[in-house]
Amino acid sequence: MAIHSINVRNQFRGRVKEILIGPVVSEIEVETALGLVTSVITTRSINELGLQVGTEVLALVKSTEVSIAKV
Amino acid sequence: MAIHSINVRNQFRGRVKEILIGPVVSEIEVETALGLVTSVITTRSINELGLQVGTEVLALVKSTEVSIAKV
Amino acid sequence: MAIHSINVRNQFRGRVKEILIGPVVSEIEVETALGLVTSVITTRSINELGLQVGTEVLALVKSTEVSIAKV
Amino acid sequence: MAIHSINVRNQFRGRVKEILIGPVVSEIEVETALGLVTSVITTRSINELGLQVGTEVLALVKSTEVSIAKV
Amino acid sequence: MAIHSINVRNQFRGRVKEILIGPVVSEIEVETALGLVTSVITTRSINELGLQVGTEVLALVKSTEVSIAKV
Amino acid sequence: MAIHSINVRNQFRGRVKEILIGPVVSEIEVETALGLVTSVITTRSINELGLQVGTEVLALVKSTEVSIAKV
Repeated sequence: MAIHSINVRNQFRGRVKEILIGPVVSEIEVETALGLVTSVITTRSINELGLQVGTEVLALVKSTEVSIAKV
Repeated sequence: MAIHSINVRNQFRGRVKEILIGPVVSEIEVETALGLVTSVITTRSINELGLQVGTEVLALVKSTEVSIAKV
Repeated sequence: MAIHSINVRNQFRGRVKEILIGPVVSEIEVETALGLVTSVITTRSINELGLQVGTEVLALVKSTEVSIAKV
Repeated sequence: MAIHSINVRNQFRGRVKEILIGPVVSEIEVETALGLVTSVITTRSINELGLQVGTEVLALVKSTEVSIAKV
Repeated sequence: MAIHSINVRNQFRGRVKEILIGPVVSEIEVETALGLVTSVITTRSINELGLQVGTEVLALVKSTEVSIAKV
Repeated sequence: MAIHSINVRNQFRGRVKEILIGPVVSEIEVETALGLVTSVITTRSINELGLQVGTEVLALVKSTEVSIAKV
């Protein structure tokens, strides 16, 4: 089902650069304008979405999951 | 206590652009190279860190919190 | 930007039954086939999505956020 | 230790339908009235809870982890 | 419904030391053997659980939510 | 990059007691004053941080990730 819009405020567009496949979860590196964004999702989702190197994706992060540090 | 390094792979450097203060939690907009990153943290943390508009910060996101969508 | 599909495996379709507005975050009750699903998102997102009582929505939960208990 | 009640507002009762075991984390499919709910937890927890196909469980989700999308 | 056991590996027993009530979410300080543990939950949950200063509680954290830093 | 301070209110100091390595994510047991704290992070992060049994670490948990149960 197509989603018209989502509440997740942090949406970073990019392309899949690398996928590290595991038996249950996998790691995806997405190349965005900001640099690499890393995601861990289920391996089933990778298959269902048909993700591979080069696929155009959105990396999404809910605001309550973002921590802030002073440097 | 200063932290030498952290496992969080997604670290976006930027400056606080706006703070919306609430009684318990507050919303921070951070301007990064990737665009705006929004974070919701406790208002106490904002005071303890001394965050204000212009403060240089890191927005951090654990990889397991990043979702992937196809566009 | 419309999203074609998303990795989030848990998607519960329903209608907004109630919104409790706060200054920074708000609580939404969604009536689904499973019963009520409660979500806390930023009040800005509620406004941007134009959510109100009766709006048809999807409640989404990443698999890594689901805990399991024995009863 | 038995838990009397918990703050987690989203509690979906069901039965384990399938377990995909991994070396560190595993995926559990829970059949509920709403359909399948997927959870990723540590494999150690699966063993400690004695989860197997058919076990009656609660799938729990904290409200701050629920995203909302418009369809 | 009483919960027999839960997959959440991190369970810290303590007493509520302070509650900061907000319109939607509230902050709870729990005094444990490890020091203070801070939680943000919905204000409705606080009322439903009947939490007040002195109440004996468990603070629970899913393993996938714990970050690791080197000091 | 060294981090001066971070908004995460829950910081538990301890030593790595055990590491269970997986192909994508790994489990770390940290021995703290409060007892064991378990964390699941990417195996890459473990390598990049150079974590091993005995390493002194901070386990960090964002307040919005802490649930509260009555016992």
